[in-house]
Amino acid sequence: MADGGGLMAQRSFLSDILRRVAGSGRIARTRQNDGESDLVTLCHNLMDDQGEASGLITAKRILEHYSGLSAENKALFFKGIVDAFGVDDRALQVAIDAWSPGDVNAARTLHFAAEPRSQELIRCINRVPGATARLVSMRADLLGIMGKSEKLRGLDEDFQHLFGSWFNRGFLEIHRIDWSTPAEVLEKVIAYEAVHEIAGWDDLRQRVGDPDRRLFGFFHPAMPSEPLIFVEVALTEDIPGAIAPILSRERTRIEPERARTAVFYSISNCQKGLHGISFGNFLIKQVVVELQRELPELSTFVTLSPVPALRKWAAGALQGDDPLLSGADRKTLAALEEGARPEPDVAVRLAARYLTRAKRPRGTAYDPVAHFHLGNGAVLHRVHAEADLSPRGLSNSWGVMVNYLYDGDQIETHHQAYATERSIAASPKVRALAGD
Amino acid sequence: MADGGGLMAQRSFLSDILRRVAGSGRIARTRQNDGESDLVTLCHNLMDDQGEASGLITAKRILEHYSGLSAENKALFFKGIVDAFGVDDRALQVAIDAWSPGDVNAARTLHFAAEPRSQELIRCINRVPGATARLVSMRADLLGIMGKSEKLRGLDEDFQHLFGSWFNRGFLEIHRIDWSTPAEVLEKVIAYEAVHEIAGWDDLRQRVGDPDRRLFGFFHPAMPSEPLIFVEVALTEDIPGAIAPILSRERTRIEPERARTAVFYSISNCQKGLHGISFGNFLIKQVVVELQRELPELSTFVTLSPVPALRKWAAGALQGDDPLLSGADRKTLAALEEGARPEPDVAVRLAARYLTRAKRPRGTAYDPVAHFHLGNGAVLHRVHAEADLSPRGLSNSWGVMVNYLYDGDQIETHHQAYATERSIAASPKVRALAGD
Amino acid sequence: MADGGGLMAQRSFLSDILRRVAGSGRIARTRQNDGESDLVTLCHNLMDDQGEASGLITAKRILEHYSGLSAENKALFFKGIVDAFGVDDRALQVAIDAWSPGDVNAARTLHFAAEPRSQELIRCINRVPGATARLVSMRADLLGIMGKSEKLRGLDEDFQHLFGSWFNRGFLEIHRIDWSTPAEVLEKVIAYEAVHEIAGWDDLRQRVGDPDRRLFGFFHPAMPSEPLIFVEVALTEDIPGAIAPILSRERTRIEPERARTAVFYSISNCQKGLHGISFGNFLIKQVVVELQRELPELSTFVTLSPVPALRKWAAGALQGDDPLLSGADRKTLAALEEGARPEPDVAVRLAARYLTRAKRPRGTAYDPVAHFHLGNGAVLHRVHAEADLSPRGLSNSWGVMVNYLYDGDQIETHHQAYATERSIAASPKVRALAGD
Amino acid sequence: MADGGGLMAQRSFLSDILRRVAGSGRIARTRQNDGESDLVTLCHNLMDDQGEASGLITAKRILEHYSGLSAENKALFFKGIVDAFGVDDRALQVAIDAWSPGDVNAARTLHFAAEPRSQELIRCINRVPGATARLVSMRADLLGIMGKSEKLRGLDEDFQHLFGSWFNRGFLEIHRIDWSTPAEVLEKVIAYEAVHEIAGWDDLRQRVGDPDRRLFGFFHPAMPSEPLIFVEVALTEDIPGAIAPILSRERTRIEPERARTAVFYSISNCQKGLHGISFGNFLIKQVVVELQRELPELSTFVTLSPVPALRKWAAGALQGDDPLLSGADRKTLAALEEGARPEPDVAVRLAARYLTRAKRPRGTAYDPVAHFHLGNGAVLHRVHAEADLSPRGLSNSWGVMVNYLYDGDQIETHHQAYATERSIAASPKVRALAGD
Repeated sequence: MADGGGLMAQRSFLSDILRRVAGSGRIARTRQNDGESDLVTLCHNLMDDQGEASGLITAKRILEHYSGLSAENKALFFKGIVDAFGVDDRALQVAIDAWSPGDVNAARTLHFAAEPRSQELIRCINRVPGATARLVSMRADLLGIMGKSEKLRGLDEDFQHLFGSWFNRGFLEIHRIDWSTPAEVLEKVIAYEAVHEIAGWDDLRQRVGDPDRRLFGFFHPAMPSEPLIFVEVALTEDIPGAIAPILSRERTRIEPERARTAVFYSISNCQKGLHGISFGNFLIKQVVVELQRELPELSTFVTLSPVPALRKWAAGALQGDDPLLSGADRKTLAALEEGARPEPDVAVRLAARYLTRAKRPRGTAYDPVAHFHLGNGAVLHRVHAEADLSPRGLSNSWGVMVNYLYDGDQIETHHQAYATERSIAASPKVRALAGD
Repeated sequence: MADGGGLMAQRSFLSDILRRVAGSGRIARTRQNDGESDLVTLCHNLMDDQGEASGLITAKRILEHYSGLSAENKALFFKGIVDAFGVDDRALQVAIDAWSPGDVNAARTLHFAAEPRSQELIRCINRVPGATARLVSMRADLLGIMGKSEKLRGLDEDFQHLFGSWFNRGFLEIHRIDWSTPAEVLEKVIAYEAVHEIAGWDDLRQRVGDPDRRLFGFFHPAMPSEPLIFVEVALTEDIPGAIAPILSRERTRIEPERARTAVFYSISNCQKGLHGISFGNFLIKQVVVELQRELPELSTFVTLSPVPALRKWAAGALQGDDPLLSGADRKTLAALEEGARPEPDVAVRLAARYLTRAKRPRGTAYDPVAHFHLGNGAVLHRVHAEADLSPRGLSNSWGVMVNYLYDGDQIETHHQAYATERSIAASPKVRALAGD
Repeated sequence: MADGGGLMAQRSFLSDILRRVAGSGRIARTRQNDGESDLVTLCHNLMDDQGEASGLITAKRILEHYSGLSAENKALFFKGIVDAFGVDDRALQVAIDAWSPGDVNAARTLHFAAEPRSQELIRCINRVPGATARLVSMRADLLGIMGKSEKLRGLDEDFQHLFGSWFNRGFLEIHRIDWSTPAEVLEKVIAYEAVHEIAGWDDLRQRVGDPDRRLFGFFHPAMPSEPLIFVEVALTEDIPGAIAPILSRERTRIEPERARTAVFYSISNCQKGLHGISFGNFLIKQVVVELQRELPELSTFVTLSPVPALRKWAAGALQGDDPLLSGADRKTLAALEEGARPEPDVAVRLAARYLTRAKRPRGTAYDPVAHFHLGNGAVLHRVHAEADLSPRGLSNSWGVMVNYLYDGDQIETHHQAYATERSIAASPKVRALAGD
Repeated sequence: MADGGGLMAQRSFLSDILRRVAGSGRIARTRQNDGESDLVTLCHNLMDDQGEASGLITAKRILEHYSGLSAENKALFFKGIVDAFGVDDRALQVAIDAWSPGDVNAARTLHFAAEPRSQELIRCINRVPGATARLVSMRADLLGIMGKSEKLRGLDEDFQHLFGSWFNRGFLEIHRIDWSTPAEVLEKVIAYEAVHEIAGWDDLRQRVGDPDRRLFGFFHPAMPSEPLIFVEVALTEDIPGAIAPILSRERTRIEPERARTAVFYSISNCQKGLHGISFGNFLIKQVVVELQRELPELSTFVTLSPVPALRKWAAGALQGDDPLLSGADRKTLAALEEGARPEPDVAVRLAARYLTRAKRPRGTAYDPVAHFHLGNGAVLHRVHAEADLSPRGLSNSWGVMVNYLYDGDQIETHHQAYATERSIAASPKVRALAGD
């Protein structure tokens, strides 16, 4: 293609268009509205407007205007949208009357008739180049604001439904992020890392630039500088049992060709506004394949993962009558002083029992990280005490971490077994620890 | 980004995944189904499957299997989809019962309950990298097959609804296509040119590579080698009155800096499967801005357009009692021999009357090309006889062509006037010709 | 980088500069010279000019002016350059006088003093963006013109010396050329293919786009749309014994993963103006590595090569007293009718003897293609009769072709043996054929 | 092109080749030499070796081995090179004997005969992908080491001669550096900024990412992540009279469209190893054109430049009998206390006299920055007191800074006048200040 800069071109295109059509009375009029914060009126204009060029300008102004609102006014705006862009009740009633069971076409007509106009509004706003990222951020606002408002929950469903379609897996691209990646992307990696904080550009440089480190993310073409999710990988000789040696600046780097193990030590979802739309599942598997292609000597793919709900569960189990706690363990836990932690052998035993047996009401693993990886087809491979001595690590799990193993041949089998029978795959070692 | 090749990587990724999971019985089992052409069963598997990796493989096999079907079997497959992926009537009935006028949330619940599962099926298939283009092509098949089948018309609405969302203007990119464009894109320009045929690579080279020629298209990131629509532009000193000098190989090329006029002489929609989703409107305006940026000396932006329905209209008007035809014109037309054409002055007069006055029942211009450009905000600027002496030109309009003028300051005004009052903007010269 | 278009930008930059400085008298003056074809004067201006901006314009005008010259005037221009941009004899004499054996610094001073100013002139012209390709083409002209002129041969040495430095291996890039390559590069592949003609874009598409075909070339960053050399590869199951099945449009394509053999069936040097600067040697080895990375199942790397000088040698051997021809072979050859060819077994025996034993005076292989591949470390692997029945194939070698095998572990050993002892590596089968 | 990653591919290619040929005894033998630090022997191998693949490996090992040497051993290595790769005295004598004045071809032969073999050695080393940057860095070492050694000065001339040819203007690319530039380039901007230090990534982000800031650099394709020189630009409404407001984090940003002035406030040469090869001259002029294209409203192009030698000159003038100092100025200067500075009006008067009249023996401006911009065709436009209150600014020039104006129409004229007559272009205001 002669230009790589389609997106940029379109942005400045818009300001050009703006200049050209600014003379027309219509635009001039709505411009005055800005002062009255009548954003909903602008939205009406947008929906009414059949001339795309001016429609784009209106959409752009909605986004700009919106971004300047206070949280309170954003809430008012969202409520205004719900009220103003609902459903045509009459048309819906007609569609209902026309339907009878078994009539798919009538159901489809009903489906379209019942679509709140807020969905079309969001689609119209999205026509402006650059709008997608801003709509994602708008939904992040909405999630923060909506609380228990039924009204706003409905609007959030509109967003989620549209984003589910727009961020379809087939539209995403996987990219390696390294030291040759644009700074505007890298700064977001620093900002979004959710598990093991990145302490600035020097730290980042190690995580993306060291020969034995990798970082991969999913991107959407309409948001090229915004990772959606990323995973950090350490290439090592053996399966690691603690996080500090991986993050240490003084660690010994190895040539990637010498590595036999790839360790997924951090996965971060980046966009609050994409809550409920899942990517991580697939990212790990794709990264496994990318790494195998680059480094055929890699034979082991594991995570080094936290156990975020171990202590919370243990506290509940201690209070309740949970049979997963043996009498001895109860005593040990009851005797623990504030801030102390059990002996390593106790900690790993408790963690192993917890991870293999503690369940949610629907039968899935109690621990959210365990649920994610098991659902993904991984095996609970090892449990380590004193593996994460950060305040959070101690507070969540007395410092326990675990490895989940992604074993190519078994992934699909384990996934199915967990999905259908809720059976948790664990190594013999972990089984033994758990007292099975 | 470290790799530009996200898409490629993902394609080969899939075959890697395929190899890795092929051992599992589940996949092996469905594979045997291929021979029985039980595509609908595969679709059921896809919808049931919650393990994304295997789901992708299923989706890929659906697409491959589909592409090998005969037209007849495609029709059967589409019907099978409609039957198998309809609506849960019970859930829908519950949602209907829960709704009362004014309850937007209940309407939304109804909306989701009434969504045919075929929509979700299409979204699931789209998860495979490269699927989008194949789904577009699947809909093209469907459009060719569906005829008057109500059943299939419903499925087509699903496609159109999803494509409308996926091909939202905000996701498209504009690119100049020139002689440095990949051959795989250029060959599609040859194939898709719909107005003035491109006679092979040498002809193409002139249209995209000559210094006074430009070609721009819209692309979707998931279909990077498939233009969606493109427009061909000639840079000239004056407004042209015929097509042959523009297409001639022997014409004199000019330095682009000397041009004052940009002529849009051909617009081609490329994807039958995107029927009903409009891009052309916006493409022209964006190209105007791109050209102004590159060549600030350009001052005039016009089309050189066919008048596809002139003779058809005239034949009808002659038979009927259409007052737009004067008595003299009636005589002239009635006297025309097979294959002959009226004198130039008569032809342009008839065309001017036709274009400014002949209307569809809803009040819009009778001529489809006129309707497109007028609705876009252009002005009917000039009418030329003996401008397109190709068989098609003669057969459609006795060789008449016209210029529509895109005049920056007036575009929005004209667009509004046509949209709301159906008023047709024409130059004084054309008005005079039309006898106004 | 924010822009990929450095080169383009620089080109239009120049015309901008031109406009800006055109007012100055100096430029205006030299412009008038164009009519008098006083190119050498422009060259003097260029060398005198210390203001880079105007120097660039002068250089650009030299190139443009030059390209419009007749062959005769080009010859005059070259001679003018040699006369006008020689050596400062006085300074050279001083440097000679200052030198005594063993004084490296004085020798270096002498080296710089003896440099013909024509070298600096070429460097100055090269400062214009886009000049490198035009200088390469200028040398191609010179090679065609110079004949036995000692004067022009000297100027050619200047070009060759500079190009040797500029086209240093470290500055070259290898690229795969496929159907996503820009058309402007692909059209050059059609034009430059020197061994097995490409019959247009459809034929090209097979050679670069078929799944079992590859094409790789070396490029220089200052000439991004000009391949320097390229090699065409067929991926096959077995070692081929004839060219027609490889070029046939009707052949059966195979999935690349099924291939075990990569066949280098055509190597083309593209730039006459780079005569004497060798790339092919290295290209093949690099392509071997690229292919192994993409397709680890490939185990055999061979050429399918012509034997261009077989018949020429045989004719000479028949006339002379060459002991390589047995009595029986002499009879056979002498009895051959015009246009006839020996029986297959005779042809391959003659070819095997020729390739393994016929030598140039310096001891290298008589056959130029054999010399290239043997010097490169390949082994003469097989000889095939009736392998190239094209007019050229028949005329050069009665249709005989051969495979040279690139066997990774042995390449370096064979290369050394050939380089130092002129020993020709051949398979036992070929040795047996040759009667060793 | 199918791959953008030519360079990367070539690097890993080398390690592949290394693995493949490592078996051969020759390579194995030289490898042992590494321990004996016999780098010069490796260089001999490299020159003798006609097999490119192994030659590349030898070159790579030379570079790696070299980079591990101490400064002392580097000096020994350089001397070893000079001794070992000199000239063939006999051949040179023959060439001298064959030459007589007027014989250009004999002079050329002499030229080639007198070329120290160290030049060819450098060219051979450069064949390895990635070598160019390492050779540039090798010369930087040499410049630091060579002191007054005649021997090493000669070797430096070899480097300079080759780099002059390789870094020919026609091979360079200009790129804008912004916040989407790869981090590996940006970190070098931080490291190389020589005039106004960049205090980390946040500061950098302002300099490259703020809407009213620009940064452009020259790059060589063989060193894509290494800027050669870059210039920092501020877009302002008026010509600035001090540096602090430009660098301040709290400054008010303006929309670039509102700017009328582009201020070049910092120019940094990045590569010590390219000392003596000039780029800055041209960079400024090209940036002027780039900016005009992006922002047609820009009308004024000025620098905000230091006056690095003002105080040094003044101290000399005070001690000597320099008539440029008036009696009053002498008194003022003599009375200045340590660390104090003259009143603003005195400072600018002194600076104006100094800049317009103080000359080097050859007649050029005494001040190096003045010499650069005047030689470039700029006009000394304004002089500001208290413009740079940093320690360096005060120490060099009592805080005085100046604007040089690049006035499109006059650049060439001024350049010529300065080049030929040493006449210094200054505005009437500066002239008046200087007392002309």
